[in-house]
Amino acid sequence: MIRFDLTTDQIPTAWYNALPDLPEPMQPPLHPATREPVGPDDLAPLFPMGLIAQEVSTDPWIDIPGEVLDILRLWRPTPLVRATRLEEQLGTPARIYFKDESGSPAGSHKPNSAVPQAFYNKTEGLTRLTTETGAGQWGSALSFASAQYGLECKVYMVRASYNQKPYRRILMETWGASVVPSPVDDESNPGSLGMAISDAVREAVTREDTHYSLGSVLNHVLLHQTIIGIEAKEQLAAAGELRPDVVIGSCGGGSNLGGISLPFMNDPAVRLVAVEPASCSTLTEGTFEYDFGDTAGMTPLLPMYTLGHDFIPPSIHAGGLRYHGDSPIICNLVKAGRMEAVAYPQGKTFEAAVQFSKSEGKVPAPETGHAIRAVIDEALAAKETGEEKVILFNYSGHGLLDLTAYDDFLNGRLVDA
Amino acid sequence: MIRFDLTTDQIPTAWYNALPDLPEPMQPPLHPATREPVGPDDLAPLFPMGLIAQEVSTDPWIDIPGEVLDILRLWRPTPLVRATRLEEQLGTPARIYFKDESGSPAGSHKPNSAVPQAFYNKTEGLTRLTTETGAGQWGSALSFASAQYGLECKVYMVRASYNQKPYRRILMETWGASVVPSPVDDESNPGSLGMAISDAVREAVTREDTHYSLGSVLNHVLLHQTIIGIEAKEQLAAAGELRPDVVIGSCGGGSNLGGISLPFMNDPAVRLVAVEPASCSTLTEGTFEYDFGDTAGMTPLLPMYTLGHDFIPPSIHAGGLRYHGDSPIICNLVKAGRMEAVAYPQGKTFEAAVQFSKSEGKVPAPETGHAIRAVIDEALAAKETGEEKVILFNYSGHGLLDLTAYDDFLNGRLVDA
Repeated sequence: MIRFDLTTDQIPTAWYNALPDLPEPMQPPLHPATREPVGPDDLAPLFPMGLIAQEVSTDPWIDIPGEVLDILRLWRPTPLVRATRLEEQLGTPARIYFKDESGSPAGSHKPNSAVPQAFYNKTEGLTRLTTETGAGQWGSALSFASAQYGLECKVYMVRASYNQKPYRRILMETWGASVVPSPVDDESNPGSLGMAISDAVREAVTREDTHYSLGSVLNHVLLHQTIIGIEAKEQLAAAGELRPDVVIGSCGGGSNLGGISLPFMNDPAVRLVAVEPASCSTLTEGTFEYDFGDTAGMTPLLPMYTLGHDFIPPSIHAGGLRYHGDSPIICNLVKAGRMEAVAYPQGKTFEAAVQFSKSEGKVPAPETGHAIRAVIDEALAAKETGEEKVILFNYSGHGLLDLTAYDDFLNGRLVDA
Repeated sequence: MIRFDLTTDQIPTAWYNALPDLPEPMQPPLHPATREPVGPDDLAPLFPMGLIAQEVSTDPWIDIPGEVLDILRLWRPTPLVRATRLEEQLGTPARIYFKDESGSPAGSHKPNSAVPQAFYNKTEGLTRLTTETGAGQWGSALSFASAQYGLECKVYMVRASYNQKPYRRILMETWGASVVPSPVDDESNPGSLGMAISDAVREAVTREDTHYSLGSVLNHVLLHQTIIGIEAKEQLAAAGELRPDVVIGSCGGGSNLGGISLPFMNDPAVRLVAVEPASCSTLTEGTFEYDFGDTAGMTPLLPMYTLGHDFIPPSIHAGGLRYHGDSPIICNLVKAGRMEAVAYPQGKTFEAAVQFSKSEGKVPAPETGHAIRAVIDEALAAKETGEEKVILFNYSGHGLLDLTAYDDFLNGRLVDA
């Protein structure tokens, strides 16, 4: 294992905006009622103008405010690590690098966007944020970021997770957030991410002091996450690598995948790979069409691969990545053939996660286990061909608050759908 | 917040041995039966010769084997962080630095010693290790280290923790360890660290292929932890600080405290402070005498402050730091007046931990919360006097697997004894 660090003052000061570089022109989001393209005013009840501007910007680079960098520096730049112990164990000629996003306060890449989102809301005078969370990664991130800027934070947590994952709830409450199970109006309903989005949006549109915050899917979220790939590029150069041959990320809504891969998209020699769960296989089995982001149909319609906004993934599925749709940017790349997508059943992903835990020491989030599965398969393929492939993946988060899923896996209780 | 990193190749290559520099000569450990000083042969059923030699060495520096450095580099050197956001919140002229040991695979400083302990056992042909764990930090660390060297690992976990902390158990099992509740012979007994040590030692002495491993107290454990303070010294210099005015660490058996403070002990201008829980106040209220390390009286007798080897801390106590005795090195320093000791009730420590979580973002282990309490009080005292004091403390671990204790605190269920 070799680590390539950047110093605090080498933190990137601008985000990379993929919009001007997309292979096909992006179709606009449509108003849920009129089905006309939405304008800034339509989004203003939910988001601050700073974020709305980023959502549609065509500038190739967007400056990161100093007040945002001050908070990001609590854990950034993050390390780039060469997983030499995993390489040895696999006996592969591939060189495997991962960007370690697990060291953030919330334990994942999510705070990269939570911090600027809280900042722009604070700057424009908002005092409260609502959001939804499934496995709890995003809710934790926004709770942390809200505490940093003195904002109130209310998190609608998918009821099944709320009941099964008390640690995530406590983490959010430790940072001062209030957490309620969703859907709020039906205690017998285990909930879904789409329902929780409806709950959070509903509250935001009815209160002047409150905005809504989304942890993935939207263009501005992926924009904020590009700091991952920008750092990785610099660190790979320091490691003596010309470029990665393949960049791999797990994909639920697309934010960690976009974060690591978009800064490499203009180099046609770099393959980009999305990894999703077989039980929620949006990119590999969904239909590309306009669909709502939430279950109740309150959000704008987005052009994306979707399993339908009323899709509920099988309850046997242990990790996150349970969203019915995907980031329009990611869908654009997949549709144009610029990005590949693969799906794995969860048993195979936990197998990979345990192998990684034993070789590199770190216990990955179940979401991250999907990326690791694909990485191991790429590395084993390289062993067959003898190719000295350079693999880069995003270690999007640790699994310390998901250990019950490991318990289920180790004791044969995780069944694939 | 400002972070001072060392690069991978700046990792220290030797440990600092405090034994030759102690203010008073160290009294030898005594054989539990004969009460005569123990020799290497007495310890050989439990420990490899490599560690026994370190236990009594008078060399001022001891080389770290390359095979140990290879594993330590998975997360070391660790960052030194200036907690500017906490400073601002306190309005203190003090400069507060912490050494962040929470980024190790097991989430604490414990792997610093688990790795060399596993290494020396592996090198001398052992194939199995037993140990005990209370809150689970040490058991996790040894499980991780054993996986790295392909050793079997059996952890006797204090039954109360085994039942209340499934996440810690699962983490150990993910790394391949087997975990059993202790005491093994009484299912109705909630257990104690002393009893679990007895269980682990009993198994090690009766099996040829098995040694015992201890996560604190002993000289060689503190030796391994000095890598923390050695790195911190170099990083403080990089931060432009001549020296810390005070070095603070929480103290259960003394390993994280020793690790950060011993490399500073030869500078009389540096105060050293041990922080312990009021409900297990070994240094502040214990008696200095020879006592056993375990409940059954199977270990050598050590010269230390002790509450008695049959002491069981109140069950309302949420964190670790529950050991009846303390490292003889730490006790030597306290007895000679070279190190101060303070005790806090747990409510005050969780208050400090939550304050830290909101300012610096990271949620500390309850053990670490003790150090943070003392740091905040030092910083507030400096505010009174206007002194630009430099405070260094050890952020010994994260609290992500201890969140139920935060839940109890936030909901008023944590009562002080």
